[in-house]
Amino acid sequence: MAQDMADSEEDGLDSRRVSAVLEAVAARDSARLTLLMAPLHPADVADLLEQIGTEERNDLLALWSGEIDGEILSEISDAIREDVIEALPPEVVAEAMRDLETDDVVDILEDLEEPAQAIILSALTSADRAAVERALSYPEYSAGRLMQREVVVAPAHWTVGDAIDHLRDADWLPDQFYHVILVDPRMKPVAYVTLGRLLSSRREVRLQDITEDSFRTLEATEPEADVAYVFNQYHLISCPVVDEAGRLVGVITIDDAMNVLDEEHEEDMLRLAGVGDDASVSDGVLATVKGRLPWLFINMLTANISAFVITRFEATISAVVVLAALMPIVASMGGNAGTQSLTVAVRALATRDLTSSNALRVVRREAMVGLVNGAFFAVVMGMVGWLVFGWAALGLVIGMALVINLLVAALAGVAVPLTLERLGADPALASGTFVTTLTDVVGFFAFLGLATWMLI
Amino acid sequence: MAQDMADSEEDGLDSRRVSAVLEAVAARDSARLTLLMAPLHPADVADLLEQIGTEERNDLLALWSGEIDGEILSEISDAIREDVIEALPPEVVAEAMRDLETDDVVDILEDLEEPAQAIILSALTSADRAAVERALSYPEYSAGRLMQREVVVAPAHWTVGDAIDHLRDADWLPDQFYHVILVDPRMKPVAYVTLGRLLSSRREVRLQDITEDSFRTLEATEPEADVAYVFNQYHLISCPVVDEAGRLVGVITIDDAMNVLDEEHEEDMLRLAGVGDDASVSDGVLATVKGRLPWLFINMLTANISAFVITRFEATISAVVVLAALMPIVASMGGNAGTQSLTVAVRALATRDLTSSNALRVVRREAMVGLVNGAFFAVVMGMVGWLVFGWAALGLVIGMALVINLLVAALAGVAVPLTLERLGADPALASGTFVTTLTDVVGFFAFLGLATWMLI
Repeated sequence: MAQDMADSEEDGLDSRRVSAVLEAVAARDSARLTLLMAPLHPADVADLLEQIGTEERNDLLALWSGEIDGEILSEISDAIREDVIEALPPEVVAEAMRDLETDDVVDILEDLEEPAQAIILSALTSADRAAVERALSYPEYSAGRLMQREVVVAPAHWTVGDAIDHLRDADWLPDQFYHVILVDPRMKPVAYVTLGRLLSSRREVRLQDITEDSFRTLEATEPEADVAYVFNQYHLISCPVVDEAGRLVGVITIDDAMNVLDEEHEEDMLRLAGVGDDASVSDGVLATVKGRLPWLFINMLTANISAFVITRFEATISAVVVLAALMPIVASMGGNAGTQSLTVAVRALATRDLTSSNALRVVRREAMVGLVNGAFFAVVMGMVGWLVFGWAALGLVIGMALVINLLVAALAGVAVPLTLERLGADPALASGTFVTTLTDVVGFFAFLGLATWMLI
Repeated sequence: MAQDMADSEEDGLDSRRVSAVLEAVAARDSARLTLLMAPLHPADVADLLEQIGTEERNDLLALWSGEIDGEILSEISDAIREDVIEALPPEVVAEAMRDLETDDVVDILEDLEEPAQAIILSALTSADRAAVERALSYPEYSAGRLMQREVVVAPAHWTVGDAIDHLRDADWLPDQFYHVILVDPRMKPVAYVTLGRLLSSRREVRLQDITEDSFRTLEATEPEADVAYVFNQYHLISCPVVDEAGRLVGVITIDDAMNVLDEEHEEDMLRLAGVGDDASVSDGVLATVKGRLPWLFINMLTANISAFVITRFEATISAVVVLAALMPIVASMGGNAGTQSLTVAVRALATRDLTSSNALRVVRREAMVGLVNGAFFAVVMGMVGWLVFGWAALGLVIGMALVINLLVAALAGVAVPLTLERLGADPALASGTFVTTLTDVVGFFAFLGLATWMLI
């Protein structure tokens, strides 16, 4: 069967292949394992290592370590990369690093602890080590960490023919490049030419005459989230990176920007849910508990605030015990409406569709939406309260509490992330807890307060 | 001041520029408006149109309609594109469409209603109209809709020199292309060559000898979510698209894939929050209510189930009224823990890190996490119950209910999206409501049930 799978047309990762690999590992059959792994893309090998258990992974690495290359290490998720590197013989890691360009080495290095970092740094040539250390001198999550230092440049006065001859004579070129960057004598980038234009123009054409309007540069210290935004907003394919003096120090390509965009989204989603930023299904039980428990702890504290509010109305609940059953409806509707408006606001802040220019309009819009939804559910639940319990005043209390809570929810959902953003914090971080605490407290207080006033 | 702004270095969109534009619109000063708008990138013009109010937008368009081009229309969000197109004179729309490549026209067209579609189709040349109609014959959200039909191909036996001469002689080339695709005599793509390799190789080198290992093709009917996954997973920059017979019909480039990735993320995030898929801060009040009310309605129904559970325990609550204050804590902790595990699972399904190969391991891991967190909060809240209310049995009830609910939350958080995925539904859709309904019902039932058994 291993033979069949190795020969099969289907070269992606599916559960049949994963099972076959695990069988080969269990049988310690390294020939079969090599056959099964051979057709896999490095990204699929990385996924496979993430999906299997820790013991199986270590057994697989022991049998197959010779085949681990730099590309696989750079595809592996941060959650297990350190374990994998420590499980491999140092000479395998050293060999793997030598294949990689410096930006990939930096990407691997920055998430590792000291001992694993030392293994990798010592494996590099001194020139590469210097380049890596220079990249690490830029702030974390900056353009400087993301860029590759290998650039293809030409003086602005060259012709197409000069550029082609230069490229043909080059000993070495980056794996990926999409522009020839035109630089002035002080290495300041002034324009760029796409490879398509270069190829389709006659040799005597001057590079200056076929440059692109889309040209712009990024500063090395710019946050990587801004890099992703600029690529997505202006449809860039690659972008030169400059130092504070405006000199070219590297280039960022769209695949790196796409990766950052993907991670930023993940971060927003996980932060909204109150999970550690880099939570992953490959994390172990302890790492997962460590990521989630602090948020649950905060939630416990805020839930106790709501409980305290309720205890203030114990006399009312004793008198009309059905209130205890109805009050979670008001809180839950508020929590949901708040989460809706919060999610739209966090997303709009990330895409810069929500700015100080339209904040007031969006807040007004949310207030209207809260009132309309509040009115609708006030009527529905008010009717339920009236008809089911035969008590019109009870229906009125539910209805009024819902209008109040859905209005507060809608406003808080947009005001909380806007305020966090203005304070320089991440609008996604902890805003879910803020908003639902508020809607719980307001929901219980409005409902029980109105009930005390109108029903007792 | 408008003069200053128009001349200023800063050419992006900031709130000062937005205010200046709005002033010029209010003063009906079209010369000043044109000066202010001139330095803006089409993507920034689109953002500006999205951020201002409907009336201001219509006034701006009336003053500035001559300058609206196809790129601006293709950048504008779906929420307002229809309004903008209908506000413009048909000849402006027609002119704008003529600048665009067919994939951009298709992208604009597919979200419009009939009358706006008709305006655009009639503006195209008959060749372009045929190409657009052919693209629209592919399923919505498929690779066929996403691809550009303009491709750069070469027979496999050509040399680098042949390819360069062909490119230099071409009347017309796509704006963006990153590979020359090698095709067999029946137009089946067999390999590709990057432009970088083409430029750096001597004229006599055969194309066949400088092809890339990364070559793969996509079928035109493949869903666009899979296209985005393949680009992100395998770091593609462009990818040929084939019909069912394997013949080349177009090419997809990474910027389109990045766009899809962005939209898929947005969809997951909005669906998890129970907001319509395409909610945006530019939506009006009615559109927003229409997107959110149905989800709140479902939440109202499920909240009534919880309320019904509570009414079954009215006698218990009457006897020990503090239970009414404590029960929301158990429900809220469960809801939060469920959302944490749900969010991680939905994200892992989207990135294909959670598959049938590791589902069992992930479920087991979640169960352990639920038990560990449950035990921790059982001890903390148990102590609170005991010390604050001086009643050990009450502490025990809270603790046991928390362990049960956090275990259920962790399991439901991963089981619900896995089940939806297996049934062919979107794992993000409505799973939040399922999970929190479950944790509310289980939380109230466990807490009040245990209280009835142990405290009364």
